[in-house]
Amino acid sequence: MGDRGRLLVSCPDRPGIVAAVSRFLFERGANIVHSDQHSTDPVGGVFFLRVEFTLADLAARAEGLRREFGAIGGPHGMEWRLALAAEPKRLAVFVSVEDHCLLELLWQQRAGDLGAEIALVIGNHPALAADVAPWGIPFHHVPVTAATKAEAEARQAALTDDRVDAIVLARYMQVLSPGFVAARRNRIINIHHSFLPAFVGAKPYAQAHARGVKLIGATAHYVTEDLDAGPIIEQDVHRVDHRHDVADLRRIGRQIERVVLARAVRWHVEDRILVHGNKTVAFA
Amino acid sequence: MGDRGRLLVSCPDRPGIVAAVSRFLFERGANIVHSDQHSTDPVGGVFFLRVEFTLADLAARAEGLRREFGAIGGPHGMEWRLALAAEPKRLAVFVSVEDHCLLELLWQQRAGDLGAEIALVIGNHPALAADVAPWGIPFHHVPVTAATKAEAEARQAALTDDRVDAIVLARYMQVLSPGFVAARRNRIINIHHSFLPAFVGAKPYAQAHARGVKLIGATAHYVTEDLDAGPIIEQDVHRVDHRHDVADLRRIGRQIERVVLARAVRWHVEDRILVHGNKTVAFA
Amino acid sequence: MGDRGRLLVSCPDRPGIVAAVSRFLFERGANIVHSDQHSTDPVGGVFFLRVEFTLADLAARAEGLRREFGAIGGPHGMEWRLALAAEPKRLAVFVSVEDHCLLELLWQQRAGDLGAEIALVIGNHPALAADVAPWGIPFHHVPVTAATKAEAEARQAALTDDRVDAIVLARYMQVLSPGFVAARRNRIINIHHSFLPAFVGAKPYAQAHARGVKLIGATAHYVTEDLDAGPIIEQDVHRVDHRHDVADLRRIGRQIERVVLARAVRWHVEDRILVHGNKTVAFA
Amino acid sequence: MGDRGRLLVSCPDRPGIVAAVSRFLFERGANIVHSDQHSTDPVGGVFFLRVEFTLADLAARAEGLRREFGAIGGPHGMEWRLALAAEPKRLAVFVSVEDHCLLELLWQQRAGDLGAEIALVIGNHPALAADVAPWGIPFHHVPVTAATKAEAEARQAALTDDRVDAIVLARYMQVLSPGFVAARRNRIINIHHSFLPAFVGAKPYAQAHARGVKLIGATAHYVTEDLDAGPIIEQDVHRVDHRHDVADLRRIGRQIERVVLARAVRWHVEDRILVHGNKTVAFA
Repeated sequence: MGDRGRLLVSCPDRPGIVAAVSRFLFERGANIVHSDQHSTDPVGGVFFLRVEFTLADLAARAEGLRREFGAIGGPHGMEWRLALAAEPKRLAVFVSVEDHCLLELLWQQRAGDLGAEIALVIGNHPALAADVAPWGIPFHHVPVTAATKAEAEARQAALTDDRVDAIVLARYMQVLSPGFVAARRNRIINIHHSFLPAFVGAKPYAQAHARGVKLIGATAHYVTEDLDAGPIIEQDVHRVDHRHDVADLRRIGRQIERVVLARAVRWHVEDRILVHGNKTVAFA
Repeated sequence: MGDRGRLLVSCPDRPGIVAAVSRFLFERGANIVHSDQHSTDPVGGVFFLRVEFTLADLAARAEGLRREFGAIGGPHGMEWRLALAAEPKRLAVFVSVEDHCLLELLWQQRAGDLGAEIALVIGNHPALAADVAPWGIPFHHVPVTAATKAEAEARQAALTDDRVDAIVLARYMQVLSPGFVAARRNRIINIHHSFLPAFVGAKPYAQAHARGVKLIGATAHYVTEDLDAGPIIEQDVHRVDHRHDVADLRRIGRQIERVVLARAVRWHVEDRILVHGNKTVAFA
Repeated sequence: MGDRGRLLVSCPDRPGIVAAVSRFLFERGANIVHSDQHSTDPVGGVFFLRVEFTLADLAARAEGLRREFGAIGGPHGMEWRLALAAEPKRLAVFVSVEDHCLLELLWQQRAGDLGAEIALVIGNHPALAADVAPWGIPFHHVPVTAATKAEAEARQAALTDDRVDAIVLARYMQVLSPGFVAARRNRIINIHHSFLPAFVGAKPYAQAHARGVKLIGATAHYVTEDLDAGPIIEQDVHRVDHRHDVADLRRIGRQIERVVLARAVRWHVEDRILVHGNKTVAFA
Repeated sequence: MGDRGRLLVSCPDRPGIVAAVSRFLFERGANIVHSDQHSTDPVGGVFFLRVEFTLADLAARAEGLRREFGAIGGPHGMEWRLALAAEPKRLAVFVSVEDHCLLELLWQQRAGDLGAEIALVIGNHPALAADVAPWGIPFHHVPVTAATKAEAEARQAALTDDRVDAIVLARYMQVLSPGFVAARRNRIINIHHSFLPAFVGAKPYAQAHARGVKLIGATAHYVTEDLDAGPIIEQDVHRVDHRHDVADLRRIGRQIERVVLARAVRWHVEDRILVHGNKTVAFA
């Protein structure tokens, strides 16, 4: 993985983008391993590109590449970034009292399946501190009340700013302030249950049970100011029937949540997700 | 199938129901082939039972059985019915201009996979008459406008009452009046698209595309006065991604709709669905 | 759960079985909560029944019930058993070096989702001892070589006989002897990868990759003398494509294996699986 | 669609391929709409590219483009082709007596969902002639016996050569000769049932039922000399359980077969499938 890079680009679509990017990489001796691209509309649309390539001595040359690529990116109006596979992303996991999503992330990290490093865990309850301890990962108890929310977020910011690439809300039951969210656009991932149809209000599993739904699901998304309505990264469902009581639905819901969240985190840290307005292009 | 019967029961749960029903069948020489049962709560709940059995000369004995079973059903407060597999249900299919659900039902009937007979098709547009003609099934064009709705429903009633067991709305784009629906409780089946999350209002596929959903689905349900909110019979989803445009989503949506509707119709005509409040017990 | 029992019956199908069993339960004041039954053929077939019921003071009355039920079971040629939900099954988990299935079982036990107690772990390698230690569950290292297999199995038997209800092979890479298997018929559960088509021989994931399969899966089954060909309890698959290399297939395979195995174990310990010849009736 | 082209390339992987192709398209004023690429290994592997682009007056310019592209393709050792979306592929469908796959293809063609034109149907039985007649598509009855196989294939060749782009075996129950297959490499698509595990020999659904499989599936693949072992295009499965008898498995199998085959055909005619050895790269 040492010499593998990922170049992510989005810009107004027009002829010549791929030609320019691929010539840039070719002239520097890079070899393209994977490439995904998408255009919302070849005329007046937005173009998205993810190129995975190998290049000898990438780590040493990355800064130079970034400087040089600016000469292409600017004229094409590109938003772009270059990420190195050898520098796995660092995550902060925010939790409350439910452990299933946290444990899945810890377990997948250990199995080498997450593609990221969990740098710290922050809980607004101390409940999960004991679960984190054996992993040698710092756990910070940052209580949050209506009165102390600003202060708590300041502490969360101090613990995470410049130290992690993304924040994962692993059943974190506090609503983050619009300011906190806006400063970390497309870098906070949340998981929540999803149903067809959706159920608004409290006790969604009880509502789903009362309605006799045949599928329950979960959605992982980036957090925006609009609660649970940010860009969707991944979704999945599981079949249920009348024999499942509310506790069964919750149990099955937990299974879907942990799987979907882990998949979304993996895609995020592998730089597979590009955001466009309120939707994602997921090169999964 | 000649001697196969299905006994459907729902009643307040209390000990002895299964014992009473199974003794009834045993004493008459019936052999239970399948039996499904469900209780919402053994204390104070509702009990649901579906028994499929074989009994020699069932057709001739059915009326007698019904008379005798009343002696059990009454004291237990049962709602019940006895259906004969040899008497397949008759369906009226209501359509507008989209053909995919109608064609799937016609095709599955022909393949012997539907378990029912499509007795007639009623369209508020004439568009699909030509599709129905080769099947030798009557097509009735019953136009509906705001001004003529009552009259149109009177005609729909005249065409279907005492002639069909159930009405299938196969992308029928008119809203039935509360009175029409109430008189056919749990006997009108509808199909509609479903998303996670749900999208309210016009052009749902366009909304789903704008939101970048990763799953699209369909829900088959009994029609109630509350549009699209009746008891769910069956649901399914299909995976989509950013490469699918709105036309793709509609195409995939059509595929799910026809499959889910046909499955729901099949379960209904095989007497596998019991309704309880606003949910179903689906012994599928 | 204290007063909940599960009665499992299989016997030659003939009229009157359900009537007899349900009257037996009714006369003793039991209330049936769930009941599933299946007949391979009402004429000359085999009948399977699983009844879940509540009965006051079940624990104290269980021995009496068993004695009394013998009077019904004998004449009908029943194989039957009565299990108490309040007595969760005890499991021995056999492992080698891969941890994913073991960890899933441990985690689901802790979450209360497994419905069983992991009484001990036996490894032919010591590799996973450290993973088990924090859970306070005994880990026994029982090395196995061709020369010591009989001795090793004797030790495995001594550690598990009369102490566990079932053995779960959680990626245990040793073949058990026919004698060991025969003595624990339908009480040893194994998990293995499955593909369409199947691949025989070494390195199945490499073979699946070479063949470009679009689905990979896993099968949980009871162990018989015929390796990997015992009665299937549960199966599932996951979609893959050309972008997945062999390591990806193995990673995805691990995810399916742990989910499918845990589901199969849960169904087994909840007495939902009845075996008939080389197949299961899974009242899942 | 008039100006949309698809360029398909496979060649030894080395730096500069994408740069060369994209510059070629850019210099001619083409705009890339979608692009998918895959490398089996950046060092010494094989590179696959599918570019979908728009170019004004494509139909008129296609021959010129092909001539000019040869100058790039040659030096890079490319196998390549340029297809025009405005020229939908023509198909011959081979059938025997089962209609479900044929009808699905006819129906999807009519719905505009297939992306191809069914030019003719050839049956070794006359059974399905009546089904094809109303569509205005020629049906040719070409009986096949061991004695007449060579002659029959000569007639099949005469009916299809230079007249169709691909042959779809829609439950065609004759084995094509190695010579016939070899001359139409990666242009004959077959569908067959698939199980986990696989069942060899006659009556696979009966075998699957006897084994109690929990999933049944179907595989669409290109036909090679090695029966049912050619490059896999698409697969899918459906869940079954002990309540399904052999007839149910066949019915469900038919549903999967028709869906999987139609999906594979659509991908083939949209030039989404590249073959490499015995596997496909499916840019689906």
